[in-house]
Amino acid sequence: MTTLYDLIIIGLGPASLTAQVYALRYNMKVLAIGGVPGGLMMESHKICNWPGEPGISGADLTKKMTDQLAGMNAETVIEEVKSITGQKGAFTVTTRSDKSFEAKLVLIATGTKHSHLGLAREDFFYGRGVTYCATCDAMFYKGKTTAVAGGGNSAVTAALYLSDICPRVYLIYRGSELKGETAWINELKAKDNVTLISETNIIDLKGENKLEAVVLDKAFEGSAELAVSGLFVEIGAKPRNELFVAMGGVVDDFGFVKVASDMTTNLPGVFAAGDLTNQSNYFRQIATAVGEGSIAADTAFKALKS
Amino acid sequence: MTTLYDLIIIGLGPASLTAQVYALRYNMKVLAIGGVPGGLMMESHKICNWPGEPGISGADLTKKMTDQLAGMNAETVIEEVKSITGQKGAFTVTTRSDKSFEAKLVLIATGTKHSHLGLAREDFFYGRGVTYCATCDAMFYKGKTTAVAGGGNSAVTAALYLSDICPRVYLIYRGSELKGETAWINELKAKDNVTLISETNIIDLKGENKLEAVVLDKAFEGSAELAVSGLFVEIGAKPRNELFVAMGGVVDDFGFVKVASDMTTNLPGVFAAGDLTNQSNYFRQIATAVGEGSIAADTAFKALKS
Repeated sequence: MTTLYDLIIIGLGPASLTAQVYALRYNMKVLAIGGVPGGLMMESHKICNWPGEPGISGADLTKKMTDQLAGMNAETVIEEVKSITGQKGAFTVTTRSDKSFEAKLVLIATGTKHSHLGLAREDFFYGRGVTYCATCDAMFYKGKTTAVAGGGNSAVTAALYLSDICPRVYLIYRGSELKGETAWINELKAKDNVTLISETNIIDLKGENKLEAVVLDKAFEGSAELAVSGLFVEIGAKPRNELFVAMGGVVDDFGFVKVASDMTTNLPGVFAAGDLTNQSNYFRQIATAVGEGSIAADTAFKALKS
Repeated sequence: MTTLYDLIIIGLGPASLTAQVYALRYNMKVLAIGGVPGGLMMESHKICNWPGEPGISGADLTKKMTDQLAGMNAETVIEEVKSITGQKGAFTVTTRSDKSFEAKLVLIATGTKHSHLGLAREDFFYGRGVTYCATCDAMFYKGKTTAVAGGGNSAVTAALYLSDICPRVYLIYRGSELKGETAWINELKAKDNVTLISETNIIDLKGENKLEAVVLDKAFEGSAELAVSGLFVEIGAKPRNELFVAMGGVVDDFGFVKVASDMTTNLPGVFAAGDLTNQSNYFRQIATAVGEGSIAADTAFKALKS
């Protein structure tokens, strides 16, 4: 006989982990399903703005949260979800390996995925010099010359991290100024092996079987070609809204799930929380994701009682 | 010469502590002023729904957050604020002892205060048997018979806490059912020294110089008078909006500060975050307060740049 869960949460990032804590405290029968415990949080080299931790890796913070849940006998399936069908009271969530789970309510907390530059051979070079996660892949480029594409916080922190292990790091960004936390930017500017290349776009990738150079739309020090072994693309994120959209869910112009202040969506019985929603002023932080996760669990609890 | 701060934050609860972290990471010149580090969080006996902590006292969680800030050289003044005057770019914040501080922007994060029953001699008995904080005062009633007024989470957890140290605890509430986390309620119902008195109001307090009994609007076991030494009033909270309202700030029907999704208020240069706002679906949790605090700091940073 199939278990009918009160709530299935899709995704395992901080919004999901918090929603699980709340739902379990409400004594709900809850299951969380997702590909990576911690989600994008897992990729953070160092987190300095989580209240109470002066500096913690994404892996360690994830472990603290999943340990807490383990102590509460939380149920988790580590696998990507392929589809959600059904309706309020009787949803079916199916994973890539065709395992199916039933729930009265669904909370989608699938977060965001890394944006790509959109270059012709970008997919070819992925894993051959092009990467979207400095924390995951930086050590493969130890001692090599690397470039980071992007001008925001994640690009700045990636460049900082690489500057400790690479002889030369280029930070290439479209704007005239870097964005993000001043503390990180100041730290970066103090590094003498980091070169900032502003108001510049990468327009092509060169190399036989692996990345050898990036081509810029503007010459830098006399050349439009910059020899690098690694390119870290850190240009933002797109909402992972595919499961929700496939159900007929309404998203905003940028693809973020439209939710009300109680995390309900246009689909009865389907809630959303975390980086993929249009809430929290689009300020995608662990601090905002946990808030949204707690609200969603509270709303789900009330929906069960009504 | 007076320091002109970029931002003064009023209140020292989790919204403020998080806003400080973010503002300092943005390299803003920031000062926080408030009466109690941790705010109401400080009064929590045990917090089980803060992500990453399987069970931590409010005092310990406060210490983790304030330690982090101390390591960032955060500036704090421990004193209640009396008034905020001026306007965007030039606010003056004055404390009860008439110390004055200047700031370009102000973030009000003063949270909530405990609601009172509104009984004739309630103020007289405050500190003489009537209390609004189980965590703070429970130990004074060790070995004595006590009552808790309220039917929500804080009442249930107060009764649980008291049941460990008191021979008999009455939980008196207006509704027919207890509200809040099922885990707490189940734990409470398993206690054999806790008596639940539903659909009942306390209408009077009796005693010479200290509380001796509460009077109910409905007889319980044959008597409308219940002999108790302590009454723990846990019936919710009201927004501490006085400073904001005095400046002409707009609040909702319940007194919560009306803020937009970026935590701006109707007053230019004045932001609000945490329990006293109308955000986060009115779900007043540490998890939601930290999200609001982070957004407010981000908005303040952008306001300085514009």
